Amino acid sequence: MPVSRRSFIHAVGAAGGYSAAFTAMQALGLLAPSTAFAGAPPDLAKGGGGKGAKVVILGAGVAGMAAAWELGKAGYDCTILEARARTGGRVWTVRKGDKIEMTDGSRQVCQWDEGQYMNAGAARLPSHHQIVLGYCRELGVELEVEVNASRSAFLLNPMANDGKPIRMRTAINDTRGHVSELLAKAINKGALDAELTADDKQRMVAFLKTYGDLSPDLFYKGSERAGLKIEPGAGDEKAVPFDPVSLKTLLDQDLWNGVLFEEVIDMQATMFQPKGGMDMIPHAFAKALGPKIIKRRCEVRQIRKTGKGVKIAYRDLAAGVDAVIEADYCISTIPLPVLAKIDADFSPAHKAAITRTPYRDSIKIAWQAPRFWEGPKYQIYGGLSFVKGPSNMVWYPSYGLHSKTGVILGAYAGGRAADQLAKMPRADQIEHTRKVIEAMHPGCGKLLEKPMQVQWGAVPYTLGIGVGWASDDEPDYHQLGRPDGPIHFAGEYLSHVGAWQEGAIRSAHRAIVMLDAQHRQGPVSAQRVI
Amino acid sequence: MPVSRRSFIHAVGAAGGYSAAFTAMQALGLLAPSTAFAGAPPDLAKGGGGKGAKVVILGAGVAGMAAAWELGKAGYDCTILEARARTGGRVWTVRKGDKIEMTDGSRQVCQWDEGQYMNAGAARLPSHHQIVLGYCRELGVELEVEVNASRSAFLLNPMANDGKPIRMRTAINDTRGHVSELLAKAINKGALDAELTADDKQRMVAFLKTYGDLSPDLFYKGSERAGLKIEPGAGDEKAVPFDPVSLKTLLDQDLWNGVLFEEVIDMQATMFQPKGGMDMIPHAFAKALGPKIIKRRCEVRQIRKTGKGVKIAYRDLAAGVDAVIEADYCISTIPLPVLAKIDADFSPAHKAAITRTPYRDSIKIAWQAPRFWEGPKYQIYGGLSFVKGPSNMVWYPSYGLHSKTGVILGAYAGGRAADQLAKMPRADQIEHTRKVIEAMHPGCGKLLEKPMQVQWGAVPYTLGIGVGWASDDEPDYHQLGRPDGPIHFAGEYLSHVGAWQEGAIRSAHRAIVMLDAQHRQGPVSAQRVI
Ligand SMILES: Cc1cc2nc3c(=O)[nH]c(=O)nc-3n(C[C@H](O)[C@H](O)[C@H](O)COP(=O)(O)OP(=O)(O)OC[C@H]3O[C@@H](n4cnc5c(N)ncnc54)[C@H](O)[C@@H]3O)c2cc1C
Ligand SMILES: Cc1cc2nc3c(=O)[nH]c(=O)nc-3n(C[C@H](O)[C@H](O)[C@H](O)COP(=O)(O)OP(=O)(O)OC[C@H]3O[C@@H](n4cnc5c(N)ncnc54)[C@H](O)[C@@H]3O)c2cc1C
Repeated sequence: MPVSRRSFIHAVGAAGGYSAAFTAMQALGLLAPSTAFAGAPPDLAKGGGGKGAKVVILGAGVAGMAAAWELGKAGYDCTILEARARTGGRVWTVRKGDKIEMTDGSRQVCQWDEGQYMNAGAARLPSHHQIVLGYCRELGVELEVEVNASRSAFLLNPMANDGKPIRMRTAINDTRGHVSELLAKAINKGALDAELTADDKQRMVAFLKTYGDLSPDLFYKGSERAGLKIEPGAGDEKAVPFDPVSLKTLLDQDLWNGVLFEEVIDMQATMFQPKGGMDMIPHAFAKALGPKIIKRRCEVRQIRKTGKGVKIAYRDLAAGVDAVIEADYCISTIPLPVLAKIDADFSPAHKAAITRTPYRDSIKIAWQAPRFWEGPKYQIYGGLSFVKGPSNMVWYPSYGLHSKTGVILGAYAGGRAADQLAKMPRADQIEHTRKVIEAMHPGCGKLLEKPMQVQWGAVPYTLGIGVGWASDDEPDYHQLGRPDGPIHFAGEYLSHVGAWQEGAIRSAHRAIVMLDAQHRQGPVSAQRVI
Repeated sequence: MPVSRRSFIHAVGAAGGYSAAFTAMQALGLLAPSTAFAGAPPDLAKGGGGKGAKVVILGAGVAGMAAAWELGKAGYDCTILEARARTGGRVWTVRKGDKIEMTDGSRQVCQWDEGQYMNAGAARLPSHHQIVLGYCRELGVELEVEVNASRSAFLLNPMANDGKPIRMRTAINDTRGHVSELLAKAINKGALDAELTADDKQRMVAFLKTYGDLSPDLFYKGSERAGLKIEPGAGDEKAVPFDPVSLKTLLDQDLWNGVLFEEVIDMQATMFQPKGGMDMIPHAFAKALGPKIIKRRCEVRQIRKTGKGVKIAYRDLAAGVDAVIEADYCISTIPLPVLAKIDADFSPAHKAAITRTPYRDSIKIAWQAPRFWEGPKYQIYGGLSFVKGPSNMVWYPSYGLHSKTGVILGAYAGGRAADQLAKMPRADQIEHTRKVIEAMHPGCGKLLEKPMQVQWGAVPYTLGIGVGWASDDEPDYHQLGRPDGPIHFAGEYLSHVGAWQEGAIRSAHRAIVMLDAQHRQGPVSAQRVI
């Protein structure tokens, strides 16, 4: 069937041109595929309504606030208890005057210029995180493009290529050239005769010539794609491409995670960031919910099931008093390492899962500097350079392009790299990132000033970048996905989109659907414990 | 020597970690390479100064205005004659109320909403066009990111894959997967034993596994990079990648120019556009130069060398009178097909070059529409979809992301594609682009309204997108690069960066350097004709 359709369209096309072919296609109902997307916020209001039911939500991160926002639409009476003075949790933008205080008692005060900031936690949004993008639209958060990949950025392995960095455009295109040359050779030697027909072989070789930008005799001799030694201009100024970097050097460089970074499904263009900082998202939620729903500086200290619902004891840190709130339901979005230390009467299975679930660490180190990476010499406007070693990358800012000053990340390390980095004293970590930037941008290390470091494993009320599930199917994941009586769980750790706001919010949506279903079964006291 | 340095650094690295390796590198003076860049504007003021010398410049495109701007800094007394009411030439932004009038007498009036526009000519700036970017900084033109590549955009060949479009992420990553699988197989069969040592072979296969996202047994079975059939979410919502598109289908699709477009050196991220439209650049030049220098609606009709300099006759279209201006020097930036028709006493060699130099055509067709390409279904925010056929591409707007309405290009065709498209009546061209968009975005064709078409070969005072030199070394190119006595030539056609503002301006810089050198030799009448 597809074959006959195709040949029909082909015949139409040959006779009547492309325009006729399109008409035929449409007549046959051949439609564009679209990505499956089941992630619209649940419409609880349709289901019956939560009027009269009280819900207490623990934590005013995006999970907690999205839960309150949607439950509110269905008439539920929500209160959020948030330990910090600010909302947003791991969505945190650091600006002039902000303090980074960590569990070791250290305290850094940000002294950057007005208008400069770093997104200490969440910093980018891919095009397919439609739940978050949808809330940006609903709540009026203005977005701008986050430049996640620049062909002018660098790859730097201090142990390879004499410690000289290689431009991204060079690595990407020289690699493709070498791979194409080798495959074309192998095909012409007959090595793939079992896999390819004579016709296929010919088409493949023609394709590889284009793909790798090979010479007519099928060698890769360098390509303008990989960068120009001399930029073209007027008169006799003709473009001269660089000589290709050898495959051996590229293999030694061994930074394929950097070369392929822009292909990671969550990192693919187009990427976004809110104008002015990622915390515009929690700010918009907090403004929409208002202070009657969000109680700041209220630290949850005890969690109890009462038979009719829940009783939460908390410390009002502003007033310096202890208080209690009762509700029919609870949603906890407190990160697990924090929750594990709170006095709670969770079921043994829930408690065990909460206590043993591992969280990963993450470190960002940011500097203020004049934008030496922009302009004629480096021509880097946003994007990431990748580094072998614990600092992992250099991240150039996507806001304020072409202005005087910027905030550049000298390190953004997760997992093992973060653990390695964390072994150095903070001052050494900071100086290490200065050296890395100096190695990529000689003479510029001294332009870096006012460093700020955040280590998420040591940030109170967070204690990690996010969960480190060993697989997609951990029993503890499923355990925490089930409510403990009237207490539901939500947050980044309860999704398959770990360490993204999208995952946190989708887990919140799931929790409120379950809560709403539970509510429609009648009073909690009469319900079977799930 | 490099080897010993490298092993030294390696030894240091092994003993003292990455940080020590960086210190050693810096001690050894191993520096980052940077791109050669000789394109700063010439500083004529240093050379001596042009006080008292008069220059008449023909055309207020970016070449003419950049020439006047730099000559003015050195004291030259410049006048620009510009035939149109607007400046900018091929840098032209069309908005509500603007008219597109063509040589066939047709006239389209733009009726889009306030704030909507299309860049009918120049539309993007790569990071390495540092001359243009430098003027944006100098003249205060605010830039924003132009999204030149979106992994969510489409490739559509109506004669292949049953006429179904393929997402860019799928084509890019499935192609890489198949190529990697084939090469790994060939290596393991020993086909490249002459080229690779045993050690190389092992490293290559390990690399190809990462590069192509191959299975442990070295097959390409699809990859999350190529897109998800099911997006991950909370609970049991695990990501499910698409099945891979076969190599045969990808070869049939035959849109490698689209797949590799973002690797074209002038198209690589980061790309820019001025906020509000590309004409912000000529507007900034025109504002800096002022109406005393730029005479609008003055159509050059005759060009004469006088022995002491030049005499230019023109028609003041506003006043409806003929006039003459004399000057010591002239710079013509009038596009060649237009210049060829002007009465001028150029040397025979210059005249011949001007008359026979071919220009290429280009067509853009733009529609206003609600942004159906954004949002959950298509998730396309800026970028280009590529189409086999004369309309060539669909270009999604990079401004106003996440707003209600946008202007989308249904066609941007150059060269042969433009010639093919131009064979249809304008109304048919426009309807063709509606069909193409409908084929990619079923049901959305009817949302397109208020089409505007511009065919540059038929735009008065331009008559083409730019020059079509057959090679990098045409005798006519060199001929026009030499002045004809006091008359110098500049413009896009006199550079190796054809059809870019950067080339036009670099040719202007070259011309004023020659003019200034000529001036410092004394009066033109006494000079040897070059
Ligand atoms: C370094 C880093 C980079 C990231 N990058 C991205 C990115 O680029 N894009 C993206 O979308 N996401 C990113 N993420 C992930 C994203 O930030 C999280 O997934 C998301 O913000 C988690 O939301 P949450 O509501 O589940 O948890 P949280 O934001 O942690 O919210 C939990 C809330 O509970 C509060 N709380 C804790 N203890 C108590 C208590 N005892 N009493 C009361 N309240 C308490 C906390 O103060 C906090 O406000 C990143 C995260 C980090 C750390
Ligand atoms: C469709 C298209 C897409 C492009 N895309 C890009 C892009 O993305 N980025 C980029 O940087 N560049 C792009 N360019 C190229 C860029 O626009 C040109 O290279 C550049 O603008 C040329 O400048 P110029 O000054 O040489 O010529 P022009 O801009 O053509 O200026 C010549 C001037 O002479 C005037 N003139 C003509 N005849 C007379 C006369 N008889 N009397 C007086 N004045 C006269 C004209 O009105 C005009 O103002 C594009 C161009 C086109 C057409």
